Amino acid sequence: MTQPTVEKTSVTLLGLGSMGTALARAWLAAGHPLTVWNRTRARAAALAAEGARAADSAAEAVAASPLIICCLLDDASVEEVLAGTDLTGKDLVNLTTGTPAQARARAAWARERGARYLDGGIMAVPPAIGVPEAGGYVFYSGSRELFERHRETLGVPVGTTYVGADAGFAALHDVALLSAMYGMFAGVAHAFALIRKEDIDPASLAPLLADWLAAMAPSVHRTAEQLRSDDYTTGVASRLAMQVAGVPTFVTTAEQQGVSPELLSPYFALMHRRLAEGGGEEDLTGVIDLLVR
Amino acid sequence: MTQPTVEKTSVTLLGLGSMGTALARAWLAAGHPLTVWNRTRARAAALAAEGARAADSAAEAVAASPLIICCLLDDASVEEVLAGTDLTGKDLVNLTTGTPAQARARAAWARERGARYLDGGIMAVPPAIGVPEAGGYVFYSGSRELFERHRETLGVPVGTTYVGADAGFAALHDVALLSAMYGMFAGVAHAFALIRKEDIDPASLAPLLADWLAAMAPSVHRTAEQLRSDDYTTGVASRLAMQVAGVPTFVTTAEQQGVSPELLSPYFALMHRRLAEGGGEEDLTGVIDLLVR
Ligand SMILES: NC(=O)c1ccc[n+]([C@@H]2O[C@H](COP(=O)([O-])OP(=O)(O)OC[C@H]3O[C@@H](n4cnc5c(N)ncnc54)[C@H](OP(=O)(O)O)[C@@H]3O)[C@@H](O)[C@H]2O)c1
Ligand SMILES: NC(=O)c1ccc[n+]([C@@H]2O[C@H](COP(=O)([O-])OP(=O)(O)OC[C@H]3O[C@@H](n4cnc5c(N)ncnc54)[C@H](OP(=O)(O)O)[C@@H]3O)[C@@H](O)[C@H]2O)c1
Repeated sequence: MTQPTVEKTSVTLLGLGSMGTALARAWLAAGHPLTVWNRTRARAAALAAEGARAADSAAEAVAASPLIICCLLDDASVEEVLAGTDLTGKDLVNLTTGTPAQARARAAWARERGARYLDGGIMAVPPAIGVPEAGGYVFYSGSRELFERHRETLGVPVGTTYVGADAGFAALHDVALLSAMYGMFAGVAHAFALIRKEDIDPASLAPLLADWLAAMAPSVHRTAEQLRSDDYTTGVASRLAMQVAGVPTFVTTAEQQGVSPELLSPYFALMHRRLAEGGGEEDLTGVIDLLVR
Repeated sequence: MTQPTVEKTSVTLLGLGSMGTALARAWLAAGHPLTVWNRTRARAAALAAEGARAADSAAEAVAASPLIICCLLDDASVEEVLAGTDLTGKDLVNLTTGTPAQARARAAWARERGARYLDGGIMAVPPAIGVPEAGGYVFYSGSRELFERHRETLGVPVGTTYVGADAGFAALHDVALLSAMYGMFAGVAHAFALIRKEDIDPASLAPLLADWLAAMAPSVHRTAEQLRSDDYTTGVASRLAMQVAGVPTFVTTAEQQGVSPELLSPYFALMHRRLAEGGGEEDLTGVIDLLVR
């Protein structure tokens, strides 16, 4: 058993972009001793005035604390910044966005250098950091031991959600949620385009859109149950056959409004394919399998 | 001023599919005298047992009430069913899904036959009819006079939202919301596809997806404000340039998971185009204009 610690964990943070700076302020506000380093020194100097210790090099910053957080632009910059540092015995937490494969490779790389590794995917924008009501959080995956040891410290700027020992899972969850969001934004773009030339105030459509999307989002639970059971006909609300019959209404309306259907037509095409393959009594879950090779 | 009426408005309903039957039950439950007609008579007979009057023909049904509701398969079936009926002096409410152009043409057609016309787009599934907590509603557009006169009756099965005198606007709002929903479903399909071959339970991804989409949906308000002001740089949360830089992470992750990016790549392509045209300091609103001819 570990001894109860009275002192707050010392943190080293590499990278003071808009996200890194927001994280730094949250740890300073909570009273954590904080060492910072940034390629462009001015940003570290600003934080030094707020109580952080500005290291002269990344190597010096890494030496200063047991817990090292990276929040850099991309995986290449992580490689570059950590190259000349001694990671032996360190707990390395990488909040830099990347692919699952990059996270897994970085985990192995850190292990070779004697460090424990935890990868993170930040589901928040900088203004939501240090604002619990904003509901932001970070997906973590990799060393569970590291996560448990530093859970409290990691939870200071924003919520934490551990998603597995596979270092790539945080990135995978991050990418999955953001991909779904881009799909939603594509649908929203199409919706606003439909009224662009009409005498309809976009601000009157907005609350209707927001409510409708929020009301439809929970259908993902039924989708998940269908995927789990491999039976895509359970609890179907609107049969695929009926939905495909409605597609011409969407396409014709877009044409008549002078709107290109390009953002929705790939989805409609997959609905047609699934129907042709016999999925008429399902709802839309079957489309998922058409995407996977 | 109209006299206060004690009796509930008599309603004629043409079309007893799954939606029409649900509507019929709601009006019967609220004590409205209801005349029904359906091409296949068995469905009318079932409702007669619950208190409706089953007419022998559409013409007889139309003659029975001042307020005529159609809930048929499509615009062609409305034409077919109403062809031999006398609509003079009637209030015709058409809840059959169609395009804005079909609604406008149907409104003119009804006017020529001496009827007032209101078009409707139903934002609910049959099980949500008569269940106010379900939050469903119908978009109405066309005759405001007709809408106001029958507002209470129309509001019996499900909520009402009047969106303008242009008969096509109900269909346009209906199509806009459902189009946005299909975009969201496309994004959700991509997200589930990403984890399809991983040891990740879809039911553990589902609540994360639902919460994230619900949290991101209100961004449509900022989009609407930007469209109104024609300034797409107001209140930008994540710069387009930064988001485009992240696109390779999404595409590479999809490839590595064996998932076709076809549902998202058209949106990413438009993000690239808008960036190339100088929209780097905007967020995603500029994509909308690229869709409109
Ligand atoms: N901002 C968001 O909304 C958000 C949300 C979720 C996740 N994230 C992720 O958080 C990470 C940081 O984002 P950010 O918004 O802070 O980005 P940013 O404002 O562009 O900052 C990038 C940081 O990386 C540093 N950097 C870039 N290339 C470098 C190199 N070759 N060597 C050393 N340092 C280098 C920059 O240093 P200089 O100051 O010297 O340029 C800066 O500290 C990214 O992976 C991003 O995807 C951001
Ligand atoms: N169900 C939903 O989730 C939902 C949601 C929103 C909007 N809507 C809209 O509501 C309308 C009705 O939908 P529904 O779910 O009730 O469809 P449905 O169950 O398929 O019923 C179709 C109705 O149209 C009748 N019909 C079809 N062709 C006809 C023709 N040529 N002549 C006379 N009658 C004809 C059918 O009569 P028979 O019984 O003789 O076949 C039946 O009454 C559609 O426009 C639909 O888009 C439905």
